[in-house]
Amino acid sequence: SDAQYSRNVPFETSPQAIRLYYFYNHWTMRVATYFFIWVDLSLALFEEPALFPLPFLATSIAEVLCLAAFFGRLMHFAKVTSQMVFWKDSKNICIMVTIVLTLIDLIIYGSLEAVNIRSVRWSRALRPIFLINFPESRQIRRALRSLRNTLPDILYVFLLFMFSVLIFSLMALKLFGDRGLKTAEGSPYFENILEIAFELYVLVTTANSPDVMMPAYDFNWWYSLYFITYIIINTYIFMSVFLAVVYSNYRKHLKNEIRKLAYLKRHKMMEAFNILKVKVGTEFVVEEAQWRRLAQMVAPDMSSAHLELLLRISDEGQKGHVDKMNFLRLADLLNIQVVTINIKRHPLETWVPRVYQSSTSLLVQKMVRHRIFVWVFDVIILINAIFIALDEKNPFISYAEWLFLSLYVIEILLKLYTYEPRAYFERKQFWNWFDTLIIIAALVATVANATIQSASKYNSQQILDIVLILRILRLLRVIISIQRFRIIVTTLINIGPTMLTFGGLVFVVYYAFAIIGMGVFHGKVQFFDPNSTAPDATVCGSPALRGSAFARGRYCKNNFNDLASSFIVLMELTVVNQWHVIADGFALVTHQAAKLYFILFHIVVVILIVNIFIAFVLEAFFVAYSLEKGEVETAIERKIQELG
Amino acid sequence: SDAQYSRNVPFETSPQAIRLYYFYNHWTMRVATYFFIWVDLSLALFEEPALFPLPFLATSIAEVLCLAAFFGRLMHFAKVTSQMVFWKDSKNICIMVTIVLTLIDLIIYGSLEAVNIRSVRWSRALRPIFLINFPESRQIRRALRSLRNTLPDILYVFLLFMFSVLIFSLMALKLFGDRGLKTAEGSPYFENILEIAFELYVLVTTANSPDVMMPAYDFNWWYSLYFITYIIINTYIFMSVFLAVVYSNYRKHLKNEIRKLAYLKRHKMMEAFNILKVKVGTEFVVEEAQWRRLAQMVAPDMSSAHLELLLRISDEGQKGHVDKMNFLRLADLLNIQVVTINIKRHPLETWVPRVYQSSTSLLVQKMVRHRIFVWVFDVIILINAIFIALDEKNPFISYAEWLFLSLYVIEILLKLYTYEPRAYFERKQFWNWFDTLIIIAALVATVANATIQSASKYNSQQILDIVLILRILRLLRVIISIQRFRIIVTTLINIGPTMLTFGGLVFVVYYAFAIIGMGVFHGKVQFFDPNSTAPDATVCGSPALRGSAFARGRYCKNNFNDLASSFIVLMELTVVNQWHVIADGFALVTHQAAKLYFILFHIVVVILIVNIFIAFVLEAFFVAYSLEKGEVETAIERKIQELG
Repeated sequence: SDAQYSRNVPFETSPQAIRLYYFYNHWTMRVATYFFIWVDLSLALFEEPALFPLPFLATSIAEVLCLAAFFGRLMHFAKVTSQMVFWKDSKNICIMVTIVLTLIDLIIYGSLEAVNIRSVRWSRALRPIFLINFPESRQIRRALRSLRNTLPDILYVFLLFMFSVLIFSLMALKLFGDRGLKTAEGSPYFENILEIAFELYVLVTTANSPDVMMPAYDFNWWYSLYFITYIIINTYIFMSVFLAVVYSNYRKHLKNEIRKLAYLKRHKMMEAFNILKVKVGTEFVVEEAQWRRLAQMVAPDMSSAHLELLLRISDEGQKGHVDKMNFLRLADLLNIQVVTINIKRHPLETWVPRVYQSSTSLLVQKMVRHRIFVWVFDVIILINAIFIALDEKNPFISYAEWLFLSLYVIEILLKLYTYEPRAYFERKQFWNWFDTLIIIAALVATVANATIQSASKYNSQQILDIVLILRILRLLRVIISIQRFRIIVTTLINIGPTMLTFGGLVFVVYYAFAIIGMGVFHGKVQFFDPNSTAPDATVCGSPALRGSAFARGRYCKNNFNDLASSFIVLMELTVVNQWHVIADGFALVTHQAAKLYFILFHIVVVILIVNIFIAFVLEAFFVAYSLEKGEVETAIERKIQELG
Repeated sequence: SDAQYSRNVPFETSPQAIRLYYFYNHWTMRVATYFFIWVDLSLALFEEPALFPLPFLATSIAEVLCLAAFFGRLMHFAKVTSQMVFWKDSKNICIMVTIVLTLIDLIIYGSLEAVNIRSVRWSRALRPIFLINFPESRQIRRALRSLRNTLPDILYVFLLFMFSVLIFSLMALKLFGDRGLKTAEGSPYFENILEIAFELYVLVTTANSPDVMMPAYDFNWWYSLYFITYIIINTYIFMSVFLAVVYSNYRKHLKNEIRKLAYLKRHKMMEAFNILKVKVGTEFVVEEAQWRRLAQMVAPDMSSAHLELLLRISDEGQKGHVDKMNFLRLADLLNIQVVTINIKRHPLETWVPRVYQSSTSLLVQKMVRHRIFVWVFDVIILINAIFIALDEKNPFISYAEWLFLSLYVIEILLKLYTYEPRAYFERKQFWNWFDTLIIIAALVATVANATIQSASKYNSQQILDIVLILRILRLLRVIISIQRFRIIVTTLINIGPTMLTFGGLVFVVYYAFAIIGMGVFHGKVQFFDPNSTAPDATVCGSPALRGSAFARGRYCKNNFNDLASSFIVLMELTVVNQWHVIADGFALVTHQAAKLYFILFHIVVVILIVNIFIAFVLEAFFVAYSLEKGEVETAIERKIQELG
């Protein structure tokens, strides 16, 4: 039943509706939905301004197809659920509105295109809505909801923060405005209130940190106090308060979600119980046969031993039926992974017992199990690291590379000889998998590279790069042998899936900002090859940038000319440093108001999303720490990975 | 007794020792200690390299005096406590060793000075130890202890982080090393493993964010993926993990401290009870008279009504004695502040009742109490803000300034007329105090400025600046009328005292780093007046800096030539941005190894102390939020301000 996967879709209970519902949740349908969402999103790669240009007709047909698919999916859902519930859900209405808006935009753009008028495909910024609002991306929606709940609290802090920035701007204007000071680049210093406010906002992000202070500091020692006060109040205290507000809301939200999910699960199981119950004695129960059928229907690939175990747990008194309380626990029971521990014999032992049990073989096994075996290979890895750092042009070193590779392969073979292979490659044995995969990948890449090289005397740069990276990644094996490192890395890997949720969230925001950025800044800044002789190559093809920090830093490739470049620029803006230089550059080639785009991006991504990310890592690490120290696993802890 | 102030000093119980102990805790002795500590620390202002130079003889005599005072204080303490306990306490030994080391250093330096050999006063970096280790600065010591407890956990994460940086450095060397790429400044790009490791460490701090990527990105689109991966893993994930580890240790430490303090308090009260107890019936109790004497001795300035109240609480059954359980509560009871609420009549009502109760007077009072009165003054403040933003050269505007000032004074007078003055200026009425002080300060400064101006026709820049700042600070009064803003600001002010603890901690670390920095970098970088004609003025007096980013950014005033400059440089390093430019600059004028000083500073201050600061603000805000929402005040919450 749904409760197992914490799904939450009210559906009708008629047999036809149930069949439809099963079909709705069938994996092919879900994969198809994801496929169309990704097609729709990736259209931005092919539309003007394109990475791989396609004619408008092709992209618009693809887009209409996607919209049709979304509409079909929605209609399917409408058939499954009741009318009332369908129209109450803001998700569905949101998708509908987006489909209609996109169609309108397509028609307007298409007809203007027909008469050769260029317009803007504004509806493209709405595409991430499909990704967010289909029931398949619950996680991203949760993260967004958490963000939305934080907004009211953040707003007041933000207003106070802006007020403080303005007060300081006013002070700066009065203190430095008519001193006639010059910045290091010779431009006037702090003479316009709007510019001051922008500079001080940038100072909060620390991006122009000592530079903005230097002219005043050079003029008079005491003015540095103004900047120190500003930094303490606005950079340190206010930014921490933002984190605190986001974090405290995140926690509150997490608790609420868990409570709500637990309630919904219980509610659904109650409904199922009410359908299946029969009266035995004084209480209502579910017959064992019924229970068995239900469990098998919900989890068809469960082994019969596992099923028997669950039944044994649920039917405590062996009475042949399951009472209400135990029935309600079914969903939780099904989620518990039962590890079937079989101490299997090594296959070689079965096939050639005499050889495997011989004294030489036993000695080898003893050696491999010994600590020194691990240490020896740690030392080999370190020597390998030194060889990698040396120049690989030397033929001796490239031979050594083969030696190291064969040593690693021998190590794995020896381990497989000693340990049972199926146990070694069990699902939970992450580190063994990691180890083997890295070695095999390095082996394959090195062999492929050598083959290509000897066959065509041609060095493929791409393959060489991959070989290099794989060769260096092998050094990560050192982590395996240090217990504390393994714990930290395991924690990081455990929170990996939820980090992907943030990846999704960031992607949605990036996509919308990239579409807007491409609309506004497309073609304003151009990248020329370093050897280009074009007259404006050093100012990115735009004379307005002459003498700007943007051109001086050779930032020409940081532009919005296609989706990939836009994403990289937005990533740089997320990292914050030098964002004011990029903002200034684009303001110079368009209008000063363009800075608002960059400030908005900073507020949304750095103040909100990055803080939520930090809050999430903090919470996840607290949980990991408390688990490690053997405390009770609470509901919060169990749910955290799911909720993000 | 000590338990009231959570002091924790084991002392002997003989009458003479008690007298000595009282004297030891007397406020004059403590003030004297603080005085000598500050004299000792401020000596750095007068010693070479000095802000205000004094001869070596003067500073060394002052230092010996301070050392004598510290030694005396320590001896006094040794008399009070038992020998065993004294020598067990690492604090005392620490101070002793520091005194001896400082004396040795002084003698060596002095004798070398006598034969005209310049040496380094290395022991000056040890001076903050006095500040930390005297019992008077418990708070800073607690913060340091919290830091120390975090170290083992941090260490493993740090090692893993360094390992990751090295792996990435190796990759960068292989990927970009022999491409022959050039940075924007034309220097070779990523060709030396040590340089790469430094650049990548700087990238973790985001200080060189897009610049370090641009050459590779210009060369090939795909290489940006390397940098994005690096930033996600090392900047975002590892830095969050550092915060998580620091925060989780901070919390654990906080809980332990509270538990320990509670235990110690109980233990001491038990000892006191065992001394004073007499047997009444079957149980041991303390007689009422005894109890009274004790309470009066501990808190001499308590009113008799208050004492009676406490006794009433402690002696529940009115039996004339206090039993054990209630006696143990005494320390907590003494800490509860009893607010004596008196609804006093307005003094004017007492003096001139007829005038004060007249209908005009009542109307005025009603007006002042009305909401519109607040709004009117908010509007006036906003108009004032606009006037401030305008040019104050206009005589009309400078007259308006007087108008605004008088309006504010009238507002306060009206409020004092309406509300009872003593209630208005009560201790808890922070905002009223704030309001009045700002207005009075602005009034005094403006009058002083006008007097000086008319008397001597001379504009004192300092006074003008102060007047300007005070004029703008008045705008903060707007905060008072917005409830949500007041809550946020009150929370910030409540955690203010503990923030000062961090100020102390930062001061200690800054001081040690500044002394070392002055020793190593003194005089290497010089600041010349912008109009100076010295040949090396543009390269800060050091030809090695020619063409460096340090000289280009006009960072010459960021030097270690005196204590104040050093502190400002360290502050800039704390803010992180452009720290690599400063580090590079000082490495150029000395040696590349100088970068280690800057990396160490980054690790200690940014990774450890700033994270503890953020952890503290987070915890304080959680407490404030939960209090605001009316949850139960737990022991943690009560203690947090004390512990920091």
